[in-house]
Amino acid sequence: MKRTTYCGLVDESYIGKDVVLKGWVQKYRNLGNLIFIDLRDREGLVQLVFNQESGEENFQLAKTLRNEFVIEVQGKVVARDEAMINKRMKTGKIEVEVNQLTILNKAKTTPFEIKDDVDAADELRLQYRYIDLRRPEMQKGLLIRNKITQAVHSYLAENDFIDIETPYLTKSTPEGARDYLVPSRVYPGHFYALPQSPQLFKQLLMGAGYDRYYQIARCFRDEDLRGDRQPEFTQIDLETSFMDQEEIIEMTEGLLKRVMKVAVNYDLTTPIPRMTWDEAMSRYGSDKPDVRFGMELKDMADAVKGIGFKVFDMALENGGQVKAIAVPGGADKYSRKQIDAKQEYIKRFGAKGLAWVKVTEEGFAGPIAKFLTNDVEAIKAAAEANVGDLILFVADKDSVVADSLGYLRCEFAKELDMIDKSQFAFVWVVDWPMFEYSEDFGRYIAAHHPFTMPNEEDVELLATDPHACHAQSYDIVLNGYELGGGSIRIHESEVQEAMFKALGFTEESAKAQFGWFIEALDYGFPPHGGLALGLDRFAMLLAGKENIREVIAFPKNSKATEPLTKAPSEVAPAQLAELHIDLAETEEKAD
Amino acid sequence: MKRTTYCGLVDESYIGKDVVLKGWVQKYRNLGNLIFIDLRDREGLVQLVFNQESGEENFQLAKTLRNEFVIEVQGKVVARDEAMINKRMKTGKIEVEVNQLTILNKAKTTPFEIKDDVDAADELRLQYRYIDLRRPEMQKGLLIRNKITQAVHSYLAENDFIDIETPYLTKSTPEGARDYLVPSRVYPGHFYALPQSPQLFKQLLMGAGYDRYYQIARCFRDEDLRGDRQPEFTQIDLETSFMDQEEIIEMTEGLLKRVMKVAVNYDLTTPIPRMTWDEAMSRYGSDKPDVRFGMELKDMADAVKGIGFKVFDMALENGGQVKAIAVPGGADKYSRKQIDAKQEYIKRFGAKGLAWVKVTEEGFAGPIAKFLTNDVEAIKAAAEANVGDLILFVADKDSVVADSLGYLRCEFAKELDMIDKSQFAFVWVVDWPMFEYSEDFGRYIAAHHPFTMPNEEDVELLATDPHACHAQSYDIVLNGYELGGGSIRIHESEVQEAMFKALGFTEESAKAQFGWFIEALDYGFPPHGGLALGLDRFAMLLAGKENIREVIAFPKNSKATEPLTKAPSEVAPAQLAELHIDLAETEEKAD
Repeated sequence: MKRTTYCGLVDESYIGKDVVLKGWVQKYRNLGNLIFIDLRDREGLVQLVFNQESGEENFQLAKTLRNEFVIEVQGKVVARDEAMINKRMKTGKIEVEVNQLTILNKAKTTPFEIKDDVDAADELRLQYRYIDLRRPEMQKGLLIRNKITQAVHSYLAENDFIDIETPYLTKSTPEGARDYLVPSRVYPGHFYALPQSPQLFKQLLMGAGYDRYYQIARCFRDEDLRGDRQPEFTQIDLETSFMDQEEIIEMTEGLLKRVMKVAVNYDLTTPIPRMTWDEAMSRYGSDKPDVRFGMELKDMADAVKGIGFKVFDMALENGGQVKAIAVPGGADKYSRKQIDAKQEYIKRFGAKGLAWVKVTEEGFAGPIAKFLTNDVEAIKAAAEANVGDLILFVADKDSVVADSLGYLRCEFAKELDMIDKSQFAFVWVVDWPMFEYSEDFGRYIAAHHPFTMPNEEDVELLATDPHACHAQSYDIVLNGYELGGGSIRIHESEVQEAMFKALGFTEESAKAQFGWFIEALDYGFPPHGGLALGLDRFAMLLAGKENIREVIAFPKNSKATEPLTKAPSEVAPAQLAELHIDLAETEEKAD
Repeated sequence: MKRTTYCGLVDESYIGKDVVLKGWVQKYRNLGNLIFIDLRDREGLVQLVFNQESGEENFQLAKTLRNEFVIEVQGKVVARDEAMINKRMKTGKIEVEVNQLTILNKAKTTPFEIKDDVDAADELRLQYRYIDLRRPEMQKGLLIRNKITQAVHSYLAENDFIDIETPYLTKSTPEGARDYLVPSRVYPGHFYALPQSPQLFKQLLMGAGYDRYYQIARCFRDEDLRGDRQPEFTQIDLETSFMDQEEIIEMTEGLLKRVMKVAVNYDLTTPIPRMTWDEAMSRYGSDKPDVRFGMELKDMADAVKGIGFKVFDMALENGGQVKAIAVPGGADKYSRKQIDAKQEYIKRFGAKGLAWVKVTEEGFAGPIAKFLTNDVEAIKAAAEANVGDLILFVADKDSVVADSLGYLRCEFAKELDMIDKSQFAFVWVVDWPMFEYSEDFGRYIAAHHPFTMPNEEDVELLATDPHACHAQSYDIVLNGYELGGGSIRIHESEVQEAMFKALGFTEESAKAQFGWFIEALDYGFPPHGGLALGLDRFAMLLAGKENIREVIAFPKNSKATEPLTKAPSEVAPAQLAELHIDLAETEEKAD
């Protein structure tokens, strides 16, 4: 029999009607001559009633039901008695009196219950992912993700974008993160790489005249995993020709507005606020500022200069900064021990210490209060602190100050519940430096990637003082997460060559790796630019989750393993032989 | 300046208006005091006019233009003189008098011209793919492909399907085609496999209650390449719960109808005709019959039995068939030598020979005519042949007869131009055998895949006479190509176990490979089924192409190589070390 509607959609409009429903037994209560079942499907729950009087056979069959059995029922929708109405259920005003029951499949007792506050270990949840995915919270996450992509497809189609697929078996390039490699069977010793992004292909499509490209593209990075990283992740990837940064930002805002409306029924106000990278670093200590709360970083240099506190003086003399945040009401809420723990934490950013005072009616209290006694009012004013606040100072070089206070700002805000979680705070961060110094590589690397266009007025600097260049790039930040980013690209081969040179490539090494691309630019490439948004992160934020695993159907665990199918796995020696590879003598087994 | 519209969209409604256009110089004609340029973008061409009188500077700059320069122009749209109207151009009634010209990028002379009848070698076209992709024919193909996916997204969203991504780093399984492998860095000696399809994941999603899933999914097979094969290809993949074959077919027809309308403005009539697999093999000698023309296979057994032609008698005595096709007007058009060439070709299907006669006013002519003289009318009637036709007979076991005559039928139809290329002839092929004998494996394999449900009445046969089972599977065929296929799946663990047994798995080997999946079926899997359509092939057929490379932006060549970026490539030894693999001692280099 054909299903009438989803369980979760049977409302008062069905009263008096016959329906056919199919779903899973969520809950079973046997009251002797009545059996109540909550039947679940993707849209929600509905209550079924089996009455012994209205059919012995059905009733006996209903007695055999257990949780997670898959059944089909035919019955009549009736209004519940006033007293029995369940206001927490969408279908709580009705129930279905079953006339006919068919068991479509039985189920063993599941390893954990299908409910939102599941207490199973993460690993067990992944091993039985098909059960975990039955939980309404998980379904909500994937449904929001689906609505995001629906909105993307429809908005971009309306705006003349063409969905074009780029290859997943591509060429390995040493720039960037570690590649996943795929051995070639046809060419011994040769490997494809899974793409870290479709960057060059989408630029080629602009060179090929497609004008507006998009793709919801899988990307791959073989990096160590953190909460918001997975070996494979998905990007809403787009590129346009002949549009400048302003036009791309405007177009993206239209896209975001549509997505927010479709996915979570949120009216996003545009234009989205913008700040320069310099301002973001200065006010928030972060290039992805969470602007849902204040507690901004304040420059204390004028207030503390020359007061005789050596730590501050030295930082300033060395060209560094003294900055502070004032934690509202923090004086009472934090003990010395708790503050010391924070100090310990920020050492990873290179901070040598965390100076602090509590603001009292009488002035300052705390370990460094004695150095500041003459300047209490000036310091309070500079830090915008009030009585009862905790002022935290970091004095160091700019990046250490920013990283440390940027981190502390967010930590304290979380702990003090200062963040309005119903808010979606978007902000553009623009005018990035072209380069950033990488401790890992021991040299300057591209802040975005090597195909980013400098600001018009900085193009000359590429040759003379490259690290002073700023870029035509823009990141979109949501609630303190980098949701995406993009840039205007280089479309002239001379500029591209200068860029590689600034990155430390020799002419030969640039040619060996990117010669084909530099050559392409000589055949009539239009000015172009684009953007990519992280779909996993977007879905995570809109679903109110804190890990992208919650919005990926079959994610890997923190060891890049998929515990259900057990990937990766050993393979037959014959498979390796065909691929012309051997296993290396194993040094030691990763745990 | 912001572009007013695409070049190819400037029509009479713009006459008298100022426009800003951006694009590529397609054609340059200098008439002394007038310069004409055809400016090209994704939507087409428009004619620009530079008049020396209306601006010396612009005119001098225009003189420097060459093909494929990227330019921006501002100008006024004017009607062409009656005599100058170009009816072959969409924009042929107007031209743009340019007031201002800006060169956005220069271009070297391209390795081949941007025109549809390009005469460059395939390899050169791939090496300069970004130039090849500028050709209108290529753009048309990718635009049709885009429209197909647009239609798919909108239709499936309207029908409550959820777009869910499944992993690309999955587990290798020995069933099916050869896997692409990806070495794991974390687990030495372990490998991911790129998926050949999302089959099991989509079934798990049904088990997880998502009810209607779809995905436009990349799939990977490391096979030797033919015209319509690529290492990576794309599937429109869908799966539903609680729907039977009839409902899935009906729903798919709705999807196809939408796609045909949106992509090529074709009104597809539904329901689409259906035939059983037996009928397709019997009438067309193919499980993917091209029904745009007749020339069906005719059973000649009754007409030739006992006439004393040994080849025919032996085939029938051995339980085989004698079948024929009548090639209309073929008697005059084919020489003995040409027919012999066909005979040579069909030996690859196992055919020992090709018997033939030409039908003349006087009877039959040709090598075997003498055996048939007494039965001319009966044979003509059975073959449905007329005077002037060429009758081709194959006598052998069923599969050889089908393969040989199925092939010849299509070959002759192509040669004789019997196919109406404007037609899109869809047909469902249903009621497939569950198993087919594989010469490669030396055993029966699943005709579709091991998760296909037998017909209700055949479930018992799985244990007793599995190879007699027919399946609840259905292929959709378009113009003689397998466009896609699907089935109702097994949702009970006992049936799945019986299926693996019928495929020759031991209990242990089934458990080792698919134990996790068989276990899953015990936790309440609903009845489910689905379908996958080949997007590359669909786009190829709708664009009127004969190779899927023409509708893939960056395909691999026949050696699975991408000549533009040069993938696959050698990689640094350090990369291999991290992945715990060595290169095998190379036996010989593949050429």
